[in-house]
Amino acid sequence: MSDERSNQTRVGVIMGSDSDLGVMLDAVRALKQLGVGWEINALSAHRTPHRVAEYVEGLEGRGVQIIIAGAGGAAHLPGVIAALTPLPVIGVPIKSTATDGLDSLLSIVQMPPGVPVATVGINAARNAGILAAQILGTGDPEVRDRVRAYKKELGTSVESRNAKLMERVEKEL
Amino acid sequence: MSDERSNQTRVGVIMGSDSDLGVMLDAVRALKQLGVGWEINALSAHRTPHRVAEYVEGLEGRGVQIIIAGAGGAAHLPGVIAALTPLPVIGVPIKSTATDGLDSLLSIVQMPPGVPVATVGINAARNAGILAAQILGTGDPEVRDRVRAYKKELGTSVESRNAKLMERVEKEL
Amino acid sequence: MSDERSNQTRVGVIMGSDSDLGVMLDAVRALKQLGVGWEINALSAHRTPHRVAEYVEGLEGRGVQIIIAGAGGAAHLPGVIAALTPLPVIGVPIKSTATDGLDSLLSIVQMPPGVPVATVGINAARNAGILAAQILGTGDPEVRDRVRAYKKELGTSVESRNAKLMERVEKEL
Amino acid sequence: MSDERSNQTRVGVIMGSDSDLGVMLDAVRALKQLGVGWEINALSAHRTPHRVAEYVEGLEGRGVQIIIAGAGGAAHLPGVIAALTPLPVIGVPIKSTATDGLDSLLSIVQMPPGVPVATVGINAARNAGILAAQILGTGDPEVRDRVRAYKKELGTSVESRNAKLMERVEKEL
Amino acid sequence: MSDERSNQTRVGVIMGSDSDLGVMLDAVRALKQLGVGWEINALSAHRTPHRVAEYVEGLEGRGVQIIIAGAGGAAHLPGVIAALTPLPVIGVPIKSTATDGLDSLLSIVQMPPGVPVATVGINAARNAGILAAQILGTGDPEVRDRVRAYKKELGTSVESRNAKLMERVEKEL
Amino acid sequence: MSDERSNQTRVGVIMGSDSDLGVMLDAVRALKQLGVGWEINALSAHRTPHRVAEYVEGLEGRGVQIIIAGAGGAAHLPGVIAALTPLPVIGVPIKSTATDGLDSLLSIVQMPPGVPVATVGINAARNAGILAAQILGTGDPEVRDRVRAYKKELGTSVESRNAKLMERVEKEL
Amino acid sequence: MSDERSNQTRVGVIMGSDSDLGVMLDAVRALKQLGVGWEINALSAHRTPHRVAEYVEGLEGRGVQIIIAGAGGAAHLPGVIAALTPLPVIGVPIKSTATDGLDSLLSIVQMPPGVPVATVGINAARNAGILAAQILGTGDPEVRDRVRAYKKELGTSVESRNAKLMERVEKEL
Amino acid sequence: MSDERSNQTRVGVIMGSDSDLGVMLDAVRALKQLGVGWEINALSAHRTPHRVAEYVEGLEGRGVQIIIAGAGGAAHLPGVIAALTPLPVIGVPIKSTATDGLDSLLSIVQMPPGVPVATVGINAARNAGILAAQILGTGDPEVRDRVRAYKKELGTSVESRNAKLMERVEKEL
Repeated sequence: MSDERSNQTRVGVIMGSDSDLGVMLDAVRALKQLGVGWEINALSAHRTPHRVAEYVEGLEGRGVQIIIAGAGGAAHLPGVIAALTPLPVIGVPIKSTATDGLDSLLSIVQMPPGVPVATVGINAARNAGILAAQILGTGDPEVRDRVRAYKKELGTSVESRNAKLMERVEKEL
Repeated sequence: MSDERSNQTRVGVIMGSDSDLGVMLDAVRALKQLGVGWEINALSAHRTPHRVAEYVEGLEGRGVQIIIAGAGGAAHLPGVIAALTPLPVIGVPIKSTATDGLDSLLSIVQMPPGVPVATVGINAARNAGILAAQILGTGDPEVRDRVRAYKKELGTSVESRNAKLMERVEKEL
Repeated sequence: MSDERSNQTRVGVIMGSDSDLGVMLDAVRALKQLGVGWEINALSAHRTPHRVAEYVEGLEGRGVQIIIAGAGGAAHLPGVIAALTPLPVIGVPIKSTATDGLDSLLSIVQMPPGVPVATVGINAARNAGILAAQILGTGDPEVRDRVRAYKKELGTSVESRNAKLMERVEKEL
Repeated sequence: MSDERSNQTRVGVIMGSDSDLGVMLDAVRALKQLGVGWEINALSAHRTPHRVAEYVEGLEGRGVQIIIAGAGGAAHLPGVIAALTPLPVIGVPIKSTATDGLDSLLSIVQMPPGVPVATVGINAARNAGILAAQILGTGDPEVRDRVRAYKKELGTSVESRNAKLMERVEKEL
Repeated sequence: MSDERSNQTRVGVIMGSDSDLGVMLDAVRALKQLGVGWEINALSAHRTPHRVAEYVEGLEGRGVQIIIAGAGGAAHLPGVIAALTPLPVIGVPIKSTATDGLDSLLSIVQMPPGVPVATVGINAARNAGILAAQILGTGDPEVRDRVRAYKKELGTSVESRNAKLMERVEKEL
Repeated sequence: MSDERSNQTRVGVIMGSDSDLGVMLDAVRALKQLGVGWEINALSAHRTPHRVAEYVEGLEGRGVQIIIAGAGGAAHLPGVIAALTPLPVIGVPIKSTATDGLDSLLSIVQMPPGVPVATVGINAARNAGILAAQILGTGDPEVRDRVRAYKKELGTSVESRNAKLMERVEKEL
Repeated sequence: MSDERSNQTRVGVIMGSDSDLGVMLDAVRALKQLGVGWEINALSAHRTPHRVAEYVEGLEGRGVQIIIAGAGGAAHLPGVIAALTPLPVIGVPIKSTATDGLDSLLSIVQMPPGVPVATVGINAARNAGILAAQILGTGDPEVRDRVRAYKKELGTSVESRNAKLMERVEKEL
Repeated sequence: MSDERSNQTRVGVIMGSDSDLGVMLDAVRALKQLGVGWEINALSAHRTPHRVAEYVEGLEGRGVQIIIAGAGGAAHLPGVIAALTPLPVIGVPIKSTATDGLDSLLSIVQMPPGVPVATVGINAARNAGILAAQILGTGDPEVRDRVRAYKKELGTSVESRNAKLMERVEKEL
């Protein structure tokens, strides 16, 4: 697979604070694995609102097709972005110290009618990357084939680890 | 806009029980409004597991591109479907009598790595329909234009209702 | 007390949807009672983001000193406004159908460092109005005196209702 | 007690990911202690759905009488299995990083009418093993006697530890 | 099917208060439908503790094989019963006015090691009845066959209702 | 103060498992400090139900006046005891690994009409000891005076630590 | 039993707002039934703080032995009272519109070390009255005997209603 | 900026226990950074109620304009203070060991009508300090200018860290 970053950026990954990078890199890893071009930014809906608007409103013109946005706490970033673009926005709730990430999840998922955010699980940035590929796959058979292969591989890996399970069990008991 | 149902079905709407129809029709209404072909079924992951598998595995061959799945309580349907297809699955948590729909939301959104479900808000079937159109829009400029127009309209409607707000306020005070 | 609306608007009341008017009028009633000039709008952070920005960024120039923002569900409006102005923003979480208003409360209160929202209780728009007067009272002794008088009155009313409590008790037992 | 694994497998223990083995071994330990034959697998409802179906549908024919299924997060595995068999399914919610295991508990216990899962506490795999023995005990007096003896022993052990409590207390105070 | 009540009582249904009867009758209905003999009592772990002990400790001698216990609020009844018998106990959390039944669910499911309660969903007494039949089915092939038939019927009914879904949809749209 | 244990035992401290001793010793420490005679046991409502009944029903005859009962998880012990005695029972919810102690709190506090448990905060065994002394103080002026003195001391200690606060602040800034 | 109100007031019932009277009368009813003298007031910790202090600090001198305090929402009243007296304070969390009474429960029960509030269930004012009698019973054998009789009666009433349960069941099935 | 402490104290910072100092110093740091005079105390609503009243009622006379109050657990301090003064009170919920700080948040924010507390996020003392400056800014253009500058700086810092993000990403991948 050629280096996807030299290719067209199809997914813009964005997070509310660069302290979220550890979590959000999982989205990038999934995109790389599935051969989807990406770019990444840490911009805050609350500290750099105009910069976020400018960035988001420029995406469509540059051919970016999907946005993955991660945020913790009040976690407005995915919704704020969804307000500014007809592109689909995938939201990643990030667990911060308080209330177990439920605050972020509810802030991201409970959007008003007309402005959805496609929400994945708490800290589930890897799944955000895979979902982005699935979305692109609706219009791009090659990406869909990669998703299909990836999912098959997942199953194979589960089965091969299962084959070794009894060994581990016997050691433990 | 021509009758989208005579056209290609692009979105399969499915719910865990036909008692969820009241909520899930909002997804259909959004798809109709945005000119996206749909079909609808009520099949249960727990009562008709083989029928669900058969249905889901046939979708890609018939050209269906996205699945919208609504379910309440333990709400496994969206995840069960996501396990069976590389197509993107949009999950709608449906509020049943207990625990305010939080059980459904968590059952749908907290999927394991590799098998995402694009989750919208509790009972937010309308947003599921719009999200489906946004997803199709990544590969279909015409649909994306309809989403753009729809979002613009949303704003216009908010502003025109705002213009009449003071009248309502004066009556109430 | 002269009609406060013919006077300077000191507090901008804003809500995410005109369906929140029933709750948010309590803020207006409190402002009227405490002689504080107000204006009111229903603008959505998600459906009219640019209109919100334009409105908020114009407030300071018109001499508005505080914003009261109410929103339900994902409830981004107060935080989105706080991102755009150095004025203090009071947030009112509005209870919608799901999760008892806790989603709105957490979305409003859990703001990131640097961008606070002064949050009041769920549906507590009346308290938002009183808090606005208390805030203005830090720089305006006349308003502070009205707050002081209002609070004294509150106590008197509790005591006079208490004086009649035994009558009610005797009827019930 | 003879090695129960050379005997008839009566309980199939299954978990959604081999990372759950640490928790699920407690079920095996309880089964061993109560002389009930078992087998163990790590298969995912979401990554290996067909393998799960094949495995579950083969259990009854091999004389397996009960399934213990553990899963975390969205935790669909116990319910997915319950959909495929008339055998009783015991579900073990496994605590993952977010929301304290409440997501798993609700995903497992809130099953729709007709398809129950016998749910035990969060991470309570030991109790799942004991419950399996109690269930077998409804048709097998020997197993029931072992459960009775086990429960009696539990009480004796509590009382003998209680007898030494004052010593510990005196050291601490 | 002969009147199961003249037959052997195999399941003792018990609830903490006769105000829970509306919910708990669903367990009886399921047992009747599956041809399992039952009896029913309303006895309180907190108001009649000795009566509960006497009743539970007499069950095994009378050939009763399973207990279904429903309770709301602090909901100790299922656990108190499980402490007194080697028989499997199925717990039904009953939703009372506060905290949506989550208090009852946690009080029932979070049992200490050694004393499990097989918990079903909030208010899910019907599933408790079906689970009891599944448990009996581990030792009684006839009951297991009835469960199998019941589950098949469930699926058939879902499919036949699904066949009429489009009619309902067309009326609504 | 003479050794209160050689005196009359007025408070029976009991916990569901001796693993709760670390938390429950705080109750003993408070009782010692307030000169109230105590005894302590670790007995389980679920593993030693008859032993608990025997113990509780013997308390009144031995002149014990109050029971402090701590338990985690399903936490039935305080309620089970309250069912067996007219003495007041103080319940201490103990935080175990899951759901932050909220399960224990709800299991203890949400008792049915007629059988209250006087519940204190999660892990707040110290407060249980103080509450026991306050309760005894309703009939014993000497104990009430010790409580009064203790509370005064609390205030003095807060004020003296406050007097040194600025020193700590200056070091930190 | 003589009219307890003409006798010594032993329990001061207080609530944060006279809108809580409907709930709090259950405490009075229990006190009347158990022959304990009472008085009742509606005073607010937040609207009449000095009046609350004056009232509470006068109770001991008038021979009042226990305070029952009910409050909803932030529900500070029981804790504020506990800060002002060595008498035991029983707290009744009152369910208001939002968050199901959990806010009130946590506000009342989670008191800091040194200042306990004996908390009963949400809206459980009846249990507060019974607990007050149990507390008085530690120093007053006559009241304790009434509690004992009351608890016995509770059991008898459960058993007599149970005796009629099958009639009701047969009507329903 | 001159040493603000030698100037007029405009904000009184207070916490319920000196163990909260680590969190509450963030409020002081923000006030220092924004040139606002402050003082700090650790006084308990429950252990030193009269000292709190005396302190709060003296603030207005000394020219203090705002109170920032932090508390954990039952967290009554901010509300107790708000009852005693017409000055605006900012509440900081402090996370203690149990229930993730949600107990403190609800205790602080859910105030009754007439007595608001301006609540910030859990442990968000820094935001309390910034909010205090914003409030003073309504009457003091110099402080408002400092807030404006501070917010601008926030944005600049986000953008400059974003400029270095790709370097960090490249190292990690």
